[in-house]
Amino acid sequence: MQRLKGFREFFPEPLPPGQEWSCDLRQHIQDCWRRTARRYGFREYDGPPLEPLELYTAKSGDEIVGQLFNFEDKGKDAVALRPEMTPTVARMVAATERAYRKPIKWFSMPQLFRYEMPQKGRLREHYQLNCDLFGETDPGADAEVIALMIDVLRSLGLGEEDFVIRLSSRKAWQEFFEREGGKVEAAYAFFQAVDKMERDDAETFARRLEPTGIRPEAVRAFVSEGKPTVELQGILDNLTARGLGGYVRLDYGVIRGLAYYTGVVFEAFDRKGEFRAIAGGGRYDGLVEMLSGGKVRMPALGFGMGDVVLALLLRERGLVPSFESTIDVVVLVEDETLRGESLGLVQRLREAGRAVDYTLTPLKADKQFKRALELGAGHWARLERGEDGGLVVRVKDLKTRVERVGKPGEEPALLAE
Amino acid sequence: MQRLKGFREFFPEPLPPGQEWSCDLRQHIQDCWRRTARRYGFREYDGPPLEPLELYTAKSGDEIVGQLFNFEDKGKDAVALRPEMTPTVARMVAATERAYRKPIKWFSMPQLFRYEMPQKGRLREHYQLNCDLFGETDPGADAEVIALMIDVLRSLGLGEEDFVIRLSSRKAWQEFFEREGGKVEAAYAFFQAVDKMERDDAETFARRLEPTGIRPEAVRAFVSEGKPTVELQGILDNLTARGLGGYVRLDYGVIRGLAYYTGVVFEAFDRKGEFRAIAGGGRYDGLVEMLSGGKVRMPALGFGMGDVVLALLLRERGLVPSFESTIDVVVLVEDETLRGESLGLVQRLREAGRAVDYTLTPLKADKQFKRALELGAGHWARLERGEDGGLVVRVKDLKTRVERVGKPGEEPALLAE
Repeated sequence: MQRLKGFREFFPEPLPPGQEWSCDLRQHIQDCWRRTARRYGFREYDGPPLEPLELYTAKSGDEIVGQLFNFEDKGKDAVALRPEMTPTVARMVAATERAYRKPIKWFSMPQLFRYEMPQKGRLREHYQLNCDLFGETDPGADAEVIALMIDVLRSLGLGEEDFVIRLSSRKAWQEFFEREGGKVEAAYAFFQAVDKMERDDAETFARRLEPTGIRPEAVRAFVSEGKPTVELQGILDNLTARGLGGYVRLDYGVIRGLAYYTGVVFEAFDRKGEFRAIAGGGRYDGLVEMLSGGKVRMPALGFGMGDVVLALLLRERGLVPSFESTIDVVVLVEDETLRGESLGLVQRLREAGRAVDYTLTPLKADKQFKRALELGAGHWARLERGEDGGLVVRVKDLKTRVERVGKPGEEPALLAE
Repeated sequence: MQRLKGFREFFPEPLPPGQEWSCDLRQHIQDCWRRTARRYGFREYDGPPLEPLELYTAKSGDEIVGQLFNFEDKGKDAVALRPEMTPTVARMVAATERAYRKPIKWFSMPQLFRYEMPQKGRLREHYQLNCDLFGETDPGADAEVIALMIDVLRSLGLGEEDFVIRLSSRKAWQEFFEREGGKVEAAYAFFQAVDKMERDDAETFARRLEPTGIRPEAVRAFVSEGKPTVELQGILDNLTARGLGGYVRLDYGVIRGLAYYTGVVFEAFDRKGEFRAIAGGGRYDGLVEMLSGGKVRMPALGFGMGDVVLALLLRERGLVPSFESTIDVVVLVEDETLRGESLGLVQRLREAGRAVDYTLTPLKADKQFKRALELGAGHWARLERGEDGGLVVRVKDLKTRVERVGKPGEEPALLAE
């Protein structure tokens, strides 16, 4: 009755032998995602993890089914665990957009699922930050979304030396394609060929291009010349004005394979090139209209950032914080006749917002103290009988070794520094 | 392509017409859950939302299958969306307990799924806070877990007048059953009968009891006498020492239907009796052993608290905070020649941790100001040309109406109060 292949269990740190996924790290990543998105004025939404299968086949065709966890439920409905968030958010926005001010800036961090043959490092689920902006065509919106992607990565401690956003434009490629006399019916094949050109050898690339009517040399020249369109230059200038210019570079080598992008496209990579893309996104002005069955027209762009590559990169760069010390105060119960009053002390400290632990059963004083150290607690606190027979609270800061004494109820002040 | 029946979409507030589930409220509930569990020294874990079907049938028998979202995946594995967390956490603890200090105090807030016929108010998914304590038999552990349940509800603003924990004991009922000469083979039927007695009429109750050899009058007398066992009295005293005595009352009317409870059982109810149970739990000292196939023996207790009844109760009691104001500062761009510098201002404020919004495209000054008010922003900030031609930042607190002026870079101080 082990867990299913490709699914993760998340444990508290320090991780037990043989476990590699930390619930503390997952929470740290999700906290940074949420905090940064909120600073940008993005609001959180979520949808069901189980959706009608048709939601995905309508967007991506029947071929997608082979990659899904799909089944027929007891009510004979064809359903699937969500492999991506875009169809869900497009439905939610199309249904309610009139109630929201534009632009609509939304984020979510769903767990997504795909049925793939288990391979090393290939999981069947991951968490993905999704940030989308609806209702604005101006490149200022594109810059805002790219700046958010940069700041999400920065909030995790990654800097200019760690990652770069490769910025490109599906529109620029479309114009190139038309200028070079590409065959209209082969446009998608052309995007696919460019998407794969970095991985392909010259021969394969030429073969992929053949039906499109475009010469490989023309493609290579366009990429190496790398002349920004007016729109891309505007986005670069906007990011530079924010002080984020060093995180982004124009690079037509990126095009993104999916059919529905209509404008800017971008991907984040680690500078050393050790990992797959960290995040990617772009503008898809026609998608809401398509997914709403033509009912709602709404320009949009967004990006997705998964947690798996990100966690590997953070570990590799030494950017995973220590999660060992989660206890602020250990209350020592050295005199069992004071257990009741000690429980009152525990309660007061917790009500003051402190994380507090104590031994649930009688234990020798030195073992309780040892446990406080093992827990990495910041302080211990204990009740003692004062000279007049009344109770006093003694608090010790385990870092500075400073002790303070006060009356019961004065604990917040004793812990103040 | 609507969402599936019984599944929720969570929208940002203010909620659009026809929508009842707020992502902000979901986050508020989960924040309170997490914060309180951490104050008690509980650590977060999570497992897969999809599990082998056998994990649930091994614990609950084949009858459970009718209530599950289960299917055969493409690899021919029988799998199910998790209907509860206990089998998952028991597996995780059994596999790794040697690496953790005892007692192990863990929490999680999984989304759980059950296939039920759609009815008004009956959902097919919900979030559930799960808190469990492993490795301690002492009633001090029971009191700690019950105190946590109380403080989780208090953290949401619920008080003594809103809810009560009904405290009972499967062990006390077991002793009663043996003392009264109940038939050993009918023990489970007896627990089931007691579990349903509050909803059943006298006749039905008597019929349910018949095969057990216990008289209805004896059961009623035991409940109304309500004499605490030594163990229960110890738990009540422990909670009273924390100042939480007013939140709990002994009540043998609670027994909990599931087979595996072995000691204390408890349920939280709203005092007005308008809702189903808010939360429930108990001690299950044999479950880890059973679920680990006899490999690991580990006493344990825990509770679960769902988000659906809780959200309804919070709304009914007026305890849902306002989520309308999520923006700290709106940056006004009144002079388009200053847009680049204004983006720098936006960036600095966000890097100082503020939630900042601004108009992505040129807009009349009065409309920008109106939007700041609509967003419920705390401040606006804008760049102006000073008398010497240099730039100054003006910040206005929209509540106190105080304006402050400083140099670019001084914004954190201008916003300080």
